[in-house]
Amino acid sequence: MKHDIDRLMAERNLDWIIVEGPDGFAGANPDYAYFTNGQHLTGTVLKQRGEPAMIVYRAMERQQAADTSLVLVPRERWNMREIRKQFPDNFSSEVELLRRMYSELGIRGRVGLYGTVKAGPHFAVTIALGQQLPGIEFVAEFENDLLSAARLTKDADEIERMREVGRKTCAVVQAVVDMISAGHADGDTLVDTIGQPITIGDIRQLINRESATLGLETPEGTIFAQGRDAGMPHSQGDDAAALKLGQAIVFDIFPREAGGGYYHDMTRTFAIGYAPPELQRAYDDVLGAFSQVVDELESGAPTKPYQDLVCSYFEARGHPTIGSTFPIEEGYIHGLGHGLGLEIHEDFGFPSQQDRGDVIVPGAVFSVEPGLYYPSKGYGVRLEDTLYCAPDGEFENLTPFPKQLVIPIREA
Amino acid sequence: MKHDIDRLMAERNLDWIIVEGPDGFAGANPDYAYFTNGQHLTGTVLKQRGEPAMIVYRAMERQQAADTSLVLVPRERWNMREIRKQFPDNFSSEVELLRRMYSELGIRGRVGLYGTVKAGPHFAVTIALGQQLPGIEFVAEFENDLLSAARLTKDADEIERMREVGRKTCAVVQAVVDMISAGHADGDTLVDTIGQPITIGDIRQLINRESATLGLETPEGTIFAQGRDAGMPHSQGDDAAALKLGQAIVFDIFPREAGGGYYHDMTRTFAIGYAPPELQRAYDDVLGAFSQVVDELESGAPTKPYQDLVCSYFEARGHPTIGSTFPIEEGYIHGLGHGLGLEIHEDFGFPSQQDRGDVIVPGAVFSVEPGLYYPSKGYGVRLEDTLYCAPDGEFENLTPFPKQLVIPIREA
Repeated sequence: MKHDIDRLMAERNLDWIIVEGPDGFAGANPDYAYFTNGQHLTGTVLKQRGEPAMIVYRAMERQQAADTSLVLVPRERWNMREIRKQFPDNFSSEVELLRRMYSELGIRGRVGLYGTVKAGPHFAVTIALGQQLPGIEFVAEFENDLLSAARLTKDADEIERMREVGRKTCAVVQAVVDMISAGHADGDTLVDTIGQPITIGDIRQLINRESATLGLETPEGTIFAQGRDAGMPHSQGDDAAALKLGQAIVFDIFPREAGGGYYHDMTRTFAIGYAPPELQRAYDDVLGAFSQVVDELESGAPTKPYQDLVCSYFEARGHPTIGSTFPIEEGYIHGLGHGLGLEIHEDFGFPSQQDRGDVIVPGAVFSVEPGLYYPSKGYGVRLEDTLYCAPDGEFENLTPFPKQLVIPIREA
Repeated sequence: MKHDIDRLMAERNLDWIIVEGPDGFAGANPDYAYFTNGQHLTGTVLKQRGEPAMIVYRAMERQQAADTSLVLVPRERWNMREIRKQFPDNFSSEVELLRRMYSELGIRGRVGLYGTVKAGPHFAVTIALGQQLPGIEFVAEFENDLLSAARLTKDADEIERMREVGRKTCAVVQAVVDMISAGHADGDTLVDTIGQPITIGDIRQLINRESATLGLETPEGTIFAQGRDAGMPHSQGDDAAALKLGQAIVFDIFPREAGGGYYHDMTRTFAIGYAPPELQRAYDDVLGAFSQVVDELESGAPTKPYQDLVCSYFEARGHPTIGSTFPIEEGYIHGLGHGLGLEIHEDFGFPSQQDRGDVIVPGAVFSVEPGLYYPSKGYGVRLEDTLYCAPDGEFENLTPFPKQLVIPIREA
């Protein structure tokens, strides 16, 4: 949580942190969004340990800057026109401006680097500044970094937002189920009231429209994958394909609050009209694994045993798993879940390979998503809810939506 | 254009380029999206000069990798499990995997760094790899970099997509005009057919719904700013505010193809019912400046004189401008336009400050957006279209929408 940042800085022996907020993709900059209170603006967040965070902003965006509630530092305090008279090109004048800024603001010591940036310009500027400011040691954390650690646990305001995103996401899924239920069969194809086949593209348009109406956006897309595609965990699905009866449909939707806010993540597997016995068995196995994990969740527990539990559960039922086979293409082939918040994948997980020692702590929000994938047999199954470990150690399911494979449709 | 990349690599003396495509925000990674043909996948694009580009992908996303049409290099070719036995932590094992990969793929010499990344992890890995691979010199370009230069000019396929985004964007603006036209006045407030005030939030919901239905997304939001907010160029507008008659409304919409594609950028300024004379005069001045610029556009011309032209035009009409005042908060306070494509702001512009020597070349797509801002007087005006300089040097306006200040409404 935000109030952990000073403690985490002390633990990592960081004197300052710099959170870059580049122009043009503010909505995809979770570290920066964590500080800017939903405002979209170019700028950089600077924070000394024990002091409130500042934002360096441009005068044109002073209103948004004020609305961040951060301490305000106008970039125009440093006169770029004057600097440009002495420094021939944009690179050296930018470095000089930052050199003056960091010096005057007293930035020194161990300085952590955060935010989403363009690789080349950030690397070039950081190397140059490091040479010109010997009092600074830039610290680049590879994983479990300071802000990921802070963001891992959500405070009450964040959870209330995530609950609301969950409710809205379920409303979108319900709209899809309603649209399918209103269709009927023409042979093995689902058609609408005027006999026109309903395509995955039609469903995707409904998802996008309903999401937007509810104030959600789906920047990474939505998976609506049928048949063999459902057996490929990250296949988004073929918009041109008509919906077919008796096929597995993996519907994995992961929207966020419009404008770059908090995510939800849920998956349902559906079959229209009826399910073939093999698909139903795989579905029952996935639901069984899901239920056992959720029943056994404990605050303070390491995540690895849950991954192992799912592998054992599936292997006992004859499915190959990543627990004993690597590389693996069919069966249970991925990790059980991941943290989420301002990113769809945050720095916390149920490890399919190396165990980093992640532990379920109060405040954590994460997905649980066992799945079985058999593209060679033309199907896949995944079920996923988003869960929250509350401060009292109880778990709350943020995805209030039933799990039922078959969507019944009317007779033709 | 893509076919310029080898030539541009030769000009910059680059042997290889690395385009990072990190997990979780693929839609906001324009350099990577430039290569991946609309596919969403974790991976890295590697390209040697004179050779086709490769993608290092994960087995779970082999279908998306195949659909990029790039040369396929599965990351699983390097056995992470075996590496992890020798290297104690995720950072050193990741660096070792990349060291082996780069060595075996023959990556050496001057290697350019591109793509959108997390600042800390990218910096840490690049520094470590640079130490372990003395045959590599990492080249970090600050501006006008290789891929920006390639992306600056659009080929026929890209332009056809950008035309379509332009048409759809105009359809969204038309839907907003239609909704406003269907309202009527209750005092100075616009109300709907049941007498309920129409708020900016209502308009934003319409914009989001229409955009989504047309296959657009607005990851950076939309500006719909009224009155004083219209005088702040980047104010997004207050959702709770009801629409008022006779107020300036700056409506700046910059959506892209859903899933991280090409952008459009257009702005209209509206007044509902009527316009006060001062606002009408400012509007006429902005429209005059806009028209003069568009009339005088020439292929091969530098951009700076157009910025100067607008400053002179406005100053002759009594408005302060950034051409003679700095810093400046009222009047004409920004640059005339910017390149756009896979980013809303690309590396090309009409300079408000330092002239980088940008030239309008055939293939360029850019905005022209003069504006006047008087927050202290409670209004602002901006007009913006997206233009394309065709290979024959003719200019095409990609924003087929009229410019008219007043939206008439019915009498109460």
